[in-house]
Amino acid sequence: MSDLIQKGKLVNATTTVLATNSTEQKNQALKLLSDELRKQKDYIMVENNRDIVNGRKNGLHESLIDRLILNEQRIDEMADALIQLTDLKDPIGEIMEEWTRPNDLKIQKARVPIGVVGMIYEARPNVTIDAASLCLKTGNAVLLRGSSSAIHSNTALVKVIQDALKQSDLPDDAVQLIEDTSRETASQMFKLNEYLDVLIPRGGKKLIDTVVANASVPVLETGAGNCHLFIDETANKDMAIEVAINAKTQRPSVCNAIETILVEQNWANNHLIELIQALQVADVEVHGDSITVSKGDNIIKATEEDYQTEYLDHIVAIKVVDSVQEAIVHINKYGTSHSESIISENDKHVVSFMNEVDAAAVYHNASTRFTDGFEFGFGAEIGISTQKLHARGPMGLEALTSTKYLLHGNGQIK
Amino acid sequence: MSDLIQKGKLVNATTTVLATNSTEQKNQALKLLSDELRKQKDYIMVENNRDIVNGRKNGLHESLIDRLILNEQRIDEMADALIQLTDLKDPIGEIMEEWTRPNDLKIQKARVPIGVVGMIYEARPNVTIDAASLCLKTGNAVLLRGSSSAIHSNTALVKVIQDALKQSDLPDDAVQLIEDTSRETASQMFKLNEYLDVLIPRGGKKLIDTVVANASVPVLETGAGNCHLFIDETANKDMAIEVAINAKTQRPSVCNAIETILVEQNWANNHLIELIQALQVADVEVHGDSITVSKGDNIIKATEEDYQTEYLDHIVAIKVVDSVQEAIVHINKYGTSHSESIISENDKHVVSFMNEVDAAAVYHNASTRFTDGFEFGFGAEIGISTQKLHARGPMGLEALTSTKYLLHGNGQIK
Repeated sequence: MSDLIQKGKLVNATTTVLATNSTEQKNQALKLLSDELRKQKDYIMVENNRDIVNGRKNGLHESLIDRLILNEQRIDEMADALIQLTDLKDPIGEIMEEWTRPNDLKIQKARVPIGVVGMIYEARPNVTIDAASLCLKTGNAVLLRGSSSAIHSNTALVKVIQDALKQSDLPDDAVQLIEDTSRETASQMFKLNEYLDVLIPRGGKKLIDTVVANASVPVLETGAGNCHLFIDETANKDMAIEVAINAKTQRPSVCNAIETILVEQNWANNHLIELIQALQVADVEVHGDSITVSKGDNIIKATEEDYQTEYLDHIVAIKVVDSVQEAIVHINKYGTSHSESIISENDKHVVSFMNEVDAAAVYHNASTRFTDGFEFGFGAEIGISTQKLHARGPMGLEALTSTKYLLHGNGQIK
Repeated sequence: MSDLIQKGKLVNATTTVLATNSTEQKNQALKLLSDELRKQKDYIMVENNRDIVNGRKNGLHESLIDRLILNEQRIDEMADALIQLTDLKDPIGEIMEEWTRPNDLKIQKARVPIGVVGMIYEARPNVTIDAASLCLKTGNAVLLRGSSSAIHSNTALVKVIQDALKQSDLPDDAVQLIEDTSRETASQMFKLNEYLDVLIPRGGKKLIDTVVANASVPVLETGAGNCHLFIDETANKDMAIEVAINAKTQRPSVCNAIETILVEQNWANNHLIELIQALQVADVEVHGDSITVSKGDNIIKATEEDYQTEYLDHIVAIKVVDSVQEAIVHINKYGTSHSESIISENDKHVVSFMNEVDAAAVYHNASTRFTDGFEFGFGAEIGISTQKLHARGPMGLEALTSTKYLLHGNGQIK
């Protein structure tokens, strides 16, 4: 039996017990894991160093090496996050709705774990602890498949998790790591419907697209963000410029940063020069349509490709539009349904924009940078869903739950 | 451009308008469709007759011919169902939750349409009206792909739908039928992620398995029901027998009928003979383990295969078990996570069973036959989900919705 099948069976066999473990038992396991991480810090760092040495030998870029590193501070941060997780409300067991039918059958809709989560991720070994702890908090078993470049770190972290589980009331086998990081094994994992209830890919667009295209196990898709800011005719000038700078520059490498600014033509006549200057002072390379190009220096003429691109960098595209309707059409054509914002004082335009733009999060008079589980107040985040089924937008603990109907009768027959 | 791509584009282009159509506009469209169905009855029956003639020529079984037939009564029933649908609450636009963050950003979670639903179904042409109307009520566009044996009926019904849409405020192109019923086109539809948000297969196990195995578009899986009744030691004898007969014989061909009865050994000692006799009187063929075989005549020795089989017929398997725990293990091994019931007066056993059995609907002292959107009080049903993401169990209108976060600010930046 392959490692994959064997571990799929192992984790799957733990779901009945996990589903009935109490909040206290799950929190105790998280605390034990926090302790073990601190205790086994040296072991983790030695194993992590093997990945770093291999990475340097293989010419891995220093930015990727940085993402690999587990030092004392980062391990402490992981241990702290586990304690914070114990404070979050356990969604499992909640009765979401209940009602009684005319035949006296009482129906309850209860929140239950999904079962087995398959997590496929790249580089960052902290995802190992992050994913495993969120799954355990919600009573799910998890089968992890990290990348080959972090295999020693991931193996060490899963050993630490298993050491903690052995001391806890949770099933010992609830977290397993696929040690074979070959593509063939990943492809088999995509189709492991017998043992997995959901696949969550975390990483770059290529990884996510591969999983979506090939998986028969249901996927929770977390995706790219080609986000827009639309500045309407009535937009407050200072607010519009401040939000534009923030949404573009506060952290350009993340999915909720903006990539294109659409500017209403009258507002553009009055303020576009100032907006461009503010962006350029903030070190942003401006690409733009012909009107934009005419308003400043060092502006690159935007092409169709610009509007399709998630720069994830200090670059922005600017396009002048006639109306809120033209902005909505542009966004629904080029956007990735992630986060979109309108700056406006015109209520009618705001309502149209918020209703007609098809995205997980639509903002009025605010930066798109708030699309995030922590900023939403969820206390945790598994990722940001850009699909429309199950969960959309920032996913907290509830995204890792399913439901079950409990029906209480006294002999009802049909 | 192929018919599939062209129609995918057409329906996809209607989603922005559909999402903003009011409840009144959607209900008016349903009423217009109800009227058109009655007006165009003769046309529909003529086209339907072409399918029936072809079906008989191709040697289609009479039971399948019966499912194909659209007579006056059945068309009236479809027209009536549309009027009933207008009375149901429109879930779209509902604010499910709202809260304000410490930075004064107000977050609302709103219910919105999914977008474009791809429906793949077999034989029964009434699914065409059923699926289209449920989608329209929830603001979704729909791309339909029925079977070749019903192509003339489906083409006629979609023409009637489009006639009604043209008179309504809804987009004319919101419902389209793929007229090419080849397997190649179906395979392309499975991967039409650019235009489809979800695929819903309705039909036999083979169709559903094919869609799940091959689709990259997210699937709402409606599946098989290998359902069980567990009769505990303390079960009331009359209630247990009455529920067993009802759950097995009231309509054996449906997914929420039971296939195996698990009987606690002490109850079996006292009452198994009576249960077997009642089943046999009700014309049920009994398969059973060796204890069951010893309790009556004409009982076929059950094999492993029996426990895996969804008979969908007047056949039942009976197995005597030691305890509620053995019943739970059996159900979680052989069940399809659909509907499971315990008959018992022992609260501790009931709690264990309801918590540990992994199924969409778990019953205490009632027949499994109530797992159904109408019996649950939803007023409509798209199918019964046996997967754990998005929707589980009977799916009403809400299963055809997604969510969207609306964020109201006053210049918030991060």
